[in-house]
Amino acid sequence: MRDYTIGIDLGGTNLRVALVDKNGTILQELERSTEPEKGPEFVVRNMVEMIQSVKGDHQVDSVGIGSPGPLNPRTGVIIEPPNLTGWSNVPIVEMLQKAINIPVTLDNDANAAALAEATIGAGAGHESVFYITVSTGIGGGYIIENKVVQGAQGYAGEIGNMIVVPNGRKHSNLNPGALEALSSGTAIAHIAEEKGITGGTAEVFRLAEEGNDVAREIIDEALTYLAIGIANLTHAVNPDVFVLGGGVMKSEKQVLEPLREKVKNLLYPGLRDSIKIVPAGLGSKAGVVGAALLPR
Amino acid sequence: MRDYTIGIDLGGTNLRVALVDKNGTILQELERSTEPEKGPEFVVRNMVEMIQSVKGDHQVDSVGIGSPGPLNPRTGVIIEPPNLTGWSNVPIVEMLQKAINIPVTLDNDANAAALAEATIGAGAGHESVFYITVSTGIGGGYIIENKVVQGAQGYAGEIGNMIVVPNGRKHSNLNPGALEALSSGTAIAHIAEEKGITGGTAEVFRLAEEGNDVAREIIDEALTYLAIGIANLTHAVNPDVFVLGGGVMKSEKQVLEPLREKVKNLLYPGLRDSIKIVPAGLGSKAGVVGAALLPR
Repeated sequence: MRDYTIGIDLGGTNLRVALVDKNGTILQELERSTEPEKGPEFVVRNMVEMIQSVKGDHQVDSVGIGSPGPLNPRTGVIIEPPNLTGWSNVPIVEMLQKAINIPVTLDNDANAAALAEATIGAGAGHESVFYITVSTGIGGGYIIENKVVQGAQGYAGEIGNMIVVPNGRKHSNLNPGALEALSSGTAIAHIAEEKGITGGTAEVFRLAEEGNDVAREIIDEALTYLAIGIANLTHAVNPDVFVLGGGVMKSEKQVLEPLREKVKNLLYPGLRDSIKIVPAGLGSKAGVVGAALLPR
Repeated sequence: MRDYTIGIDLGGTNLRVALVDKNGTILQELERSTEPEKGPEFVVRNMVEMIQSVKGDHQVDSVGIGSPGPLNPRTGVIIEPPNLTGWSNVPIVEMLQKAINIPVTLDNDANAAALAEATIGAGAGHESVFYITVSTGIGGGYIIENKVVQGAQGYAGEIGNMIVVPNGRKHSNLNPGALEALSSGTAIAHIAEEKGITGGTAEVFRLAEEGNDVAREIIDEALTYLAIGIANLTHAVNPDVFVLGGGVMKSEKQVLEPLREKVKNLLYPGLRDSIKIVPAGLGSKAGVVGAALLPR
């Protein structure tokens, strides 16, 4: 019986480890700085210590890790994530399994959060859930019947690289006009800076709230492109619900309401009354809870 | 044992009915003009006659219908397809079931063809298949483990309405800049006409083959937008294989080769060597065979 599993949320800044029961409830949780620059062996040692500590006397038969991508969930290798500095082809599953002698599962952090939201969060009770996280970047996870759709090479849900404007704005190594280059927190901050607004995404939202036209327009445009992405996903796979997570898209009034209107206008009439776009329900716990659900 | 099923391919022009065995092989097949303008009762009477005729002495325990959409696969109602003139909210499943006393399943024609291609056609042996048909319109079907992904409201695979150019070319009731408005046979013919080439899509391809620059550019642009659609679907659900059907996209040299190159350039490096785009394998039989596979 898989009554208890360990979830590990391996972030660029923080490392969280939790003991989670079969309902997705956290019983024990620990957090440390990740310090990825000290190398994978150092981080794995920390993981082992933290697992021992949260586990206590509980019988645990599997461990799940949510990590920044790119990674290979089948081989258990973290390839070369931009926010795990210096890590390259790290066989994290093998390393951790050897140390603790418990089966370990790896997936990317957006898939882990998606699984948590679909299973016990804002998407619970729906057959299919598309989770979209908008923070510094844009990621996603597609869940059918409480299972992550990985895709053939593990790239399902990598919607930050979907093109919404051919030959549009270019951002890091993504396609020109990719969704992440137009609607992410980083994109909003960059576009704002070009228009003389400094202070980042939060400042743009604050100014828009106050009625600043330039700020309003920047947000409106970011939402227009996000709406195109969501409408395109609807006409591709028509999920029961979209769950929006991440730091940027929290505000019901500034984000979710106008976004729903924009999406509706881009759908077949038969879909307009049934489209569901809801805010994530688990906040920052989604990553570690989802990681614990991965092995199930 | 479901050894034999009946497949019905209900087209705007032709009505096909076939007896199909469990391997997807057609044992008997009949074709008549659909004559949708004579009304659903007339067409259902024809279906019944044709079923009796192809059935012979075989034990048949289910019937599948592939029909133009929009339709509701759950209620079995054909809503109002543009190429079934005069049909509006036709409860085709109920009508046919009453007449033959065998369970009937309904789905749209692109999903039926997708299922056939995924099960015994060009996508056979793959876990997930995205079928794309490019003819007068653009449709699709997404299959996981030999089952159609319907989506919450049955709109999964309606990729003709995916936006590839915001505020782009407008076509029928679709979104401005929808894929179908840019890459379908109809779109190619319209764009060609505006540039002085008459004679439809086939003529554009013929001229391009001969080296006509205007014709080449029209096809190149249509393929560029189709490549964006395929790249976006890859970053959304990363299927094992894309199967391309329909009258327009047959040519390996004029279509498939340049299309593959274009798609590769729009993918994460980790996907470039693994993307598979193959031509459909079943030709015009896909519809009726897929319809027969629907009830399984």
